[in-house]
Amino acid sequence: MIHLNEEDIAQMENRYRGNLFNTISGFKSGNLIGTTDESGNSNLAIFNSVVHIGANPPYLGFILRPTTVDRHTYENIKSTGFYTLNHVHEDFIAKAHQTSAKYDRNISEFDACGFQKQILDDFHAPYVKESTIKLGLRFEEELPITVNSTILVVGKIHHAYLDQKLIAEDGSVDLSGAGTVAISGLYEYFKPIKLKKFAYAKP
Amino acid sequence: MIHLNEEDIAQMENRYRGNLFNTISGFKSGNLIGTTDESGNSNLAIFNSVVHIGANPPYLGFILRPTTVDRHTYENIKSTGFYTLNHVHEDFIAKAHQTSAKYDRNISEFDACGFQKQILDDFHAPYVKESTIKLGLRFEEELPITVNSTILVVGKIHHAYLDQKLIAEDGSVDLSGAGTVAISGLYEYFKPIKLKKFAYAKP
Repeated sequence: MIHLNEEDIAQMENRYRGNLFNTISGFKSGNLIGTTDESGNSNLAIFNSVVHIGANPPYLGFILRPTTVDRHTYENIKSTGFYTLNHVHEDFIAKAHQTSAKYDRNISEFDACGFQKQILDDFHAPYVKESTIKLGLRFEEELPITVNSTILVVGKIHHAYLDQKLIAEDGSVDLSGAGTVAISGLYEYFKPIKLKKFAYAKP
Repeated sequence: MIHLNEEDIAQMENRYRGNLFNTISGFKSGNLIGTTDESGNSNLAIFNSVVHIGANPPYLGFILRPTTVDRHTYENIKSTGFYTLNHVHEDFIAKAHQTSAKYDRNISEFDACGFQKQILDDFHAPYVKESTIKLGLRFEEELPITVNSTILVVGKIHHAYLDQKLIAEDGSVDLSGAGTVAISGLYEYFKPIKLKKFAYAKP
């Protein structure tokens, strides 16, 4: 076992450190965020930082890094107030990963990467037709993270679309059954295999 | 595919809604957070909300829900300024899950759940000896999330411990090789199998 201290970390080559600390926090979710700008141009971008904020009512957050392509997503969420979250399915990881490329604003990643836009129940933001689990959210608040100028964006889930068969009796969603992948770092995609489901733990 | 709207969600039975929205955001990381209080009592609790905030310097965040057992962890981090993050390995998921039980403050989950405390390089907070990847962090800031009184806690990684063989040439960590698990919701543990590693995407 090696020990990396602050000085070791500071002296690392930039991309090496980036890969190390993007992977060392553990597995992450893979979600495609769909938005449109005020002119109706659609945008689709992959995020691996979606985090559960609360269930009643249901809130989700994600981390936005203002220097990256996430910027289009952020601007669209701020100007329209709505966005969709669409699970990345194992059958389309290559196309999902391709949405992380820096496309110009006038190019829709739906078209460029080969996804079908889907409008459901008159929601303002487009869903990914190919996704087996889709959520429609409204922007609630943003929290600026002082240390490095990233932002936590918090939204409320207004709509959820999924196959009834994926929902267990206790309400939990069968992510394996949905084909949902996990992500490590920025480049690696995984298929999680169930080990065990435990009960509520008591002392 | 069913559609659940705001009204459907509001009318759900509480635990059902809790399970649904704790699982519907996708796979999560599994980390044990180790702390001590000012009297030296140690605390260990499982968290599934660790999120990458930045790599240079390296920051991680996690969501704290003030009404749960997380409270001891929070109080210790605030009073001492330090905490450890230890990956949950597939060999000890049952013990790791058991740390989510509501133990009294004077009971250490290290002892109650069968983990060995490890102090490394005089760090203030205890590591989990059994974990293959361990991080030592200093508290940096907390962001109150207005919508439901949860908190985003942000810390800086000062120390990282892992086997050199787990680090690829490009710096990325082999989480499968480390035996690190993924979590769905509050109760289900998964072993992720690698599908594919892609390159940096270009238009």
